[in-house]
Amino acid sequence: MSVLVVGSLALDSIETPFGSVHDAIGGSATYISVAASYFVNPIRIVGVVGGDFPSSAITFLEERKVDIDGLQVIKDGKTFRWSGRYRYDLNERDTLSTDLNVFEKFDPEIPEKYRKTRCVCLGNIDPVLQLKVLDQMDNPRLVVCDTMNYWIDRKKADLQKTLKRINILILNDSEARLLSQEPNLIKAGRVIRSMGPRVVIIKKGEHGALLLTDQMTFSAPAYPMENIFDPTGAGDSFAGGFVGWLARTDDTSEENLKRAVIYGSTLASFCVEKFSVDGLKDLTYLRIQDRFREFRELSRFEDL
Amino acid sequence: MSVLVVGSLALDSIETPFGSVHDAIGGSATYISVAASYFVNPIRIVGVVGGDFPSSAITFLEERKVDIDGLQVIKDGKTFRWSGRYRYDLNERDTLSTDLNVFEKFDPEIPEKYRKTRCVCLGNIDPVLQLKVLDQMDNPRLVVCDTMNYWIDRKKADLQKTLKRINILILNDSEARLLSQEPNLIKAGRVIRSMGPRVVIIKKGEHGALLLTDQMTFSAPAYPMENIFDPTGAGDSFAGGFVGWLARTDDTSEENLKRAVIYGSTLASFCVEKFSVDGLKDLTYLRIQDRFREFRELSRFEDL
Repeated sequence: MSVLVVGSLALDSIETPFGSVHDAIGGSATYISVAASYFVNPIRIVGVVGGDFPSSAITFLEERKVDIDGLQVIKDGKTFRWSGRYRYDLNERDTLSTDLNVFEKFDPEIPEKYRKTRCVCLGNIDPVLQLKVLDQMDNPRLVVCDTMNYWIDRKKADLQKTLKRINILILNDSEARLLSQEPNLIKAGRVIRSMGPRVVIIKKGEHGALLLTDQMTFSAPAYPMENIFDPTGAGDSFAGGFVGWLARTDDTSEENLKRAVIYGSTLASFCVEKFSVDGLKDLTYLRIQDRFREFRELSRFEDL
Repeated sequence: MSVLVVGSLALDSIETPFGSVHDAIGGSATYISVAASYFVNPIRIVGVVGGDFPSSAITFLEERKVDIDGLQVIKDGKTFRWSGRYRYDLNERDTLSTDLNVFEKFDPEIPEKYRKTRCVCLGNIDPVLQLKVLDQMDNPRLVVCDTMNYWIDRKKADLQKTLKRINILILNDSEARLLSQEPNLIKAGRVIRSMGPRVVIIKKGEHGALLLTDQMTFSAPAYPMENIFDPTGAGDSFAGGFVGWLARTDDTSEENLKRAVIYGSTLASFCVEKFSVDGLKDLTYLRIQDRFREFRELSRFEDL
């Protein structure tokens, strides 16, 4: 099953206690596409960049068999830029600057040949744009969606329209509490499912993730990371690994959703080991499967 | 294998968003003993209470087959009292008052007949007293120890002496960071293990627990609680379930340590469902095993 990814492409400048990078490739659509590309191809990406988006980045996407025909390049515009600094424990970050540039007027236009794509992954963008994407699609079988506190605070009504049209929502614990107005995450998941998505995934950073459906609660462990270099893109890599696995297997049974959460966690764990998308370069399906099995060892126990 | 438990016995006054109790039975030794009593008996308790400790509490301990011959009763003294209030999300609490009373001069004296007990569980008390207990014991096979930020801040040198003489330390995430001066929990576990205990268990509240040994990291899920009535005693119930299982099975292999962490989590989950020790009353081994299996379902996933 092919995957359509819609979201941002950016140039990030990041400082962590371990170093810094300037104008490195980033953006939700970038991380999602690259992570998903290890499971299925081609990945179809829709987004916008300026004339300054480096050709090396385009080459990298093409090497990962990401179809960039839906990528709008505005030659005399500048690419979306974000800069941020992580504090010493890497759990908190300060945004230093956000320059939307060409992303400010992003209007996702889905190429004709993409419209029958069966699996859609909506990166964290304005829910109004997420709806516009869905309006152009021809009855997708699976819609996975990400969002963030910014949209929950400012565009809740639009977000709720989006939620009615998606199958799976991925968000983090503070976003889940904000959206549901409920501190207990199990209850929060139920409130959010009542807004539309059949499945809710709540990411808890260093504490793993929860997968919540009507029938089941699944608690996925976090990989025991000792050296997180750069948390940027971890959430998007999670979404990419998750959706990539579901598209590869074309199976949304509860047992397979669990595996997808672990593959998402696996890709996120690779992502944070290096700066920018470097942690997602040069992976192999074999290495990914090895780490999947490490996750299994990490949480496995047997009755006596 | 019998278990010796040393710690506090208290009368707690607790307010939560769901109600309040006044002078309810509490204290680390109480929760540990009652939780462990579902796995092995008798449990031998050493602690101190005043003449005001209710006879119903004594009867309850006796019914749970807790041997109270080591319980000092100071007839003209008052029992240790604690009162606290939990905030609406139950993750934070404010101590309203602490009256040590007879506990202030507690000097644990281990009855002769207890000294050969093979398994010792040191509740959260002054590390100087924990050392005094160990000095009186005749070569215990397994020593499990709890502590808290108060002792890490004020008695670190004494605590480090204790750590050299125990096998397993149980503490929560903020205490692990404080003791190790390391924000990353995996690294914190390694630092703490270098202080003495072969095994470190880091409890993470609603995020489960980590079991860290030389060879292995095990991530235990949290039970998906929707209705936590009173978190008081959860940590001690964890310790009791953990040590009770190890004593019952007389097996400290890594596979069995994992099970013990799940039994600890199981007893903690029962504890918080009601006020005071009420959640630990009227359990059966069958109900405990059913919940153990729920923990298994919660975290189990299989390769395709």
